[in-house]
Amino acid sequence: MKINKNFLKLGENYLFLIISEKVKRFKEKFPKKDIISLGIGDVTLPVCEAAVSAGLKAIEEMASAETFKGYGPNNGYLFLREKICKSYSERGVNISVDEVFISDGSKSDIGNISDIFSNENVCLIPDPTYPVYVDSNIMAGREITYCNAEERNEFLPTPIPEYEKSDLIYICSPNNPTGAAYSHEQLKSWVDFALSRNSVILFDSAYEAFVSNDVPHSIFEIEGARKCAIEFRSFSKTAGFTGMRCAYTIISKELEYDDVKINELWSRRQSTKFNGVPYVIQRAAEATLSAEGKTQIKKNIDYYRKNAEIIMQKLRHAKVKFFGGINSPYIWMKCPESMKSWKFFDFILEDAGVIGIPGSGFGKNGENFFRLACFGNHERTEEAIERLCRSILKKL
Amino acid sequence: MKINKNFLKLGENYLFLIISEKVKRFKEKFPKKDIISLGIGDVTLPVCEAAVSAGLKAIEEMASAETFKGYGPNNGYLFLREKICKSYSERGVNISVDEVFISDGSKSDIGNISDIFSNENVCLIPDPTYPVYVDSNIMAGREITYCNAEERNEFLPTPIPEYEKSDLIYICSPNNPTGAAYSHEQLKSWVDFALSRNSVILFDSAYEAFVSNDVPHSIFEIEGARKCAIEFRSFSKTAGFTGMRCAYTIISKELEYDDVKINELWSRRQSTKFNGVPYVIQRAAEATLSAEGKTQIKKNIDYYRKNAEIIMQKLRHAKVKFFGGINSPYIWMKCPESMKSWKFFDFILEDAGVIGIPGSGFGKNGENFFRLACFGNHERTEEAIERLCRSILKKL
Repeated sequence: MKINKNFLKLGENYLFLIISEKVKRFKEKFPKKDIISLGIGDVTLPVCEAAVSAGLKAIEEMASAETFKGYGPNNGYLFLREKICKSYSERGVNISVDEVFISDGSKSDIGNISDIFSNENVCLIPDPTYPVYVDSNIMAGREITYCNAEERNEFLPTPIPEYEKSDLIYICSPNNPTGAAYSHEQLKSWVDFALSRNSVILFDSAYEAFVSNDVPHSIFEIEGARKCAIEFRSFSKTAGFTGMRCAYTIISKELEYDDVKINELWSRRQSTKFNGVPYVIQRAAEATLSAEGKTQIKKNIDYYRKNAEIIMQKLRHAKVKFFGGINSPYIWMKCPESMKSWKFFDFILEDAGVIGIPGSGFGKNGENFFRLACFGNHERTEEAIERLCRSILKKL
Repeated sequence: MKINKNFLKLGENYLFLIISEKVKRFKEKFPKKDIISLGIGDVTLPVCEAAVSAGLKAIEEMASAETFKGYGPNNGYLFLREKICKSYSERGVNISVDEVFISDGSKSDIGNISDIFSNENVCLIPDPTYPVYVDSNIMAGREITYCNAEERNEFLPTPIPEYEKSDLIYICSPNNPTGAAYSHEQLKSWVDFALSRNSVILFDSAYEAFVSNDVPHSIFEIEGARKCAIEFRSFSKTAGFTGMRCAYTIISKELEYDDVKINELWSRRQSTKFNGVPYVIQRAAEATLSAEGKTQIKKNIDYYRKNAEIIMQKLRHAKVKFFGGINSPYIWMKCPESMKSWKFFDFILEDAGVIGIPGSGFGKNGENFFRLACFGNHERTEEAIERLCRSILKKL
């Protein structure tokens, strides 16, 4: 038996391990120091009432033979897929129910989608990036080229002839980690590029609920995208479902390569290697798309947005440069005095008792940057960013 | 962009489609005829009280900031992994918590495990078989050899020199579809074979709760298995969780190939392409392993077993040959007078109004056999099998 040797080429997942080790050592040294984390990318507000009620009702249904649900449809219950199509149509995008695939998470889908593509394809992945795009393709043995997301392009690279080899194009907008979001025109340039080269765009839209200006929520707002893109969406950040686990992937029936419908390939992949999302969870997810649920989840998103505003205001006041925050729960700040990401991490932990994520952990272009997240409470977030700014001003 | 062309080599998933088409046409022709299905492989009894209570409590926890749970551990909460280890130790098998990986289903794990193995490996898969073993390996482009499960070996093939090429050995015991279960000695012969050839056994133990005599519940009851086997288990059939979605995979830390620990490879695969099972579902699953929960799920298993007994008794009385039923919810009956599986399907649908699954749908060695499942209620199961036997006796 031979293992898949591509796994040996994976870099180690050290980023969060090193952070927790450093924090642990700091706490041992200064047990009384108050530490606030602006590092975590996980929600903290409870699941909304509408989803909780629907979940409770659904569990009760499982307790009675008359309403019990066994295996559900592999691609999700129609009641949920219909609600998702409706939410797209409200933004002028037509998606049919058989173009929606319900799953347990966008991470699963973005990783597993690799199965249906040839390993000979070349990937184009932004640097910095969410690590799953890279690691899932290293596992498959694919060649990876990077496109540079940098300060000079406001972390929003657009196609250039040098991206010649790019069969699988990964785009995350609004972006993790940089918080930058593509405009309609910028996304159009990617769609045109993909169409001209017979590439596929894998569009990660996990943070679309944070869009607050006129940038697209969906790649399908762009003409031509139905013929070159797959969209990944999640209830995780949108509805605080990180512990509930529900997401969905949209594959149009017009998407074809080698005369094969990608929608059918994915359906076959999922019916072979997946058995659907719990009925209880799908009912809870459905409730977040009801009128009542939408109001409740918007309230939570607004709460996190307020954190972003607090952070941005203080950073502006301290004259610290940053990206993101407007359409994203992440603020991508530039470390002062060209400080390296890890050096800034150590400095701000020691001086301010604040934790963030070193940008270099997301790729070489993340060097000199630092990711702050907006998922805490207002009071502690304000306290943290004030302490961070004070330390920076003292240093300068 | 090139698709994974191996997908084009997959046979179509026609079996259940053809069955539902045939039943539909029959209903149109004879709208008043009473039809009973002994075909479905899905549970029908509601989720047990202990699991429902735990699920309700867990959803309530999600509704409050103090008890809310976001992302959980990729490989499952410790509370569930500990209970699983305890259930193994009660049968004399020592498994440590970091050898347990919680997932959303055994189908997912059995399919996804393919990722960590080289595509150059050759598979040994029984015929007849659960189709996922075959299809997931066709997708990966692996060579497949078959080992014959036939009447002459009571559908329990043991290693022979002809199985020379066999890096990945798939074993399902108690078996779907045949209901046959390997003895300790027979499984030992597979473990010895795998150890001698440096193969890995992928042991699907989804039906272990139906074991009623002294055959092994787990491959890890066999000496040496920790160095050559991976075990897949599920709450689906054990606890009626087909709509709840929870399973687990056991990979010992002693399992190594090419000097690489398979436990670590799988952990890396799951942390890259999976984000864990809903907290609510893990709490419900945990409750099925409590003293109260175990009593309740045993009551359900006993209910299904009683169906198996009813079916076996009637078949014996009608002098129909069959396998399975003792350690399995499936009875694998031989079609009378060497009738082909599909011919028998048509005959029994028309004459008795009973639905079963043609054995040939699971592989060539399934020809002349017919799968009956025990997941209905007593009264209807008895009615169905009586009608089926009456039709057979009439025919003979």
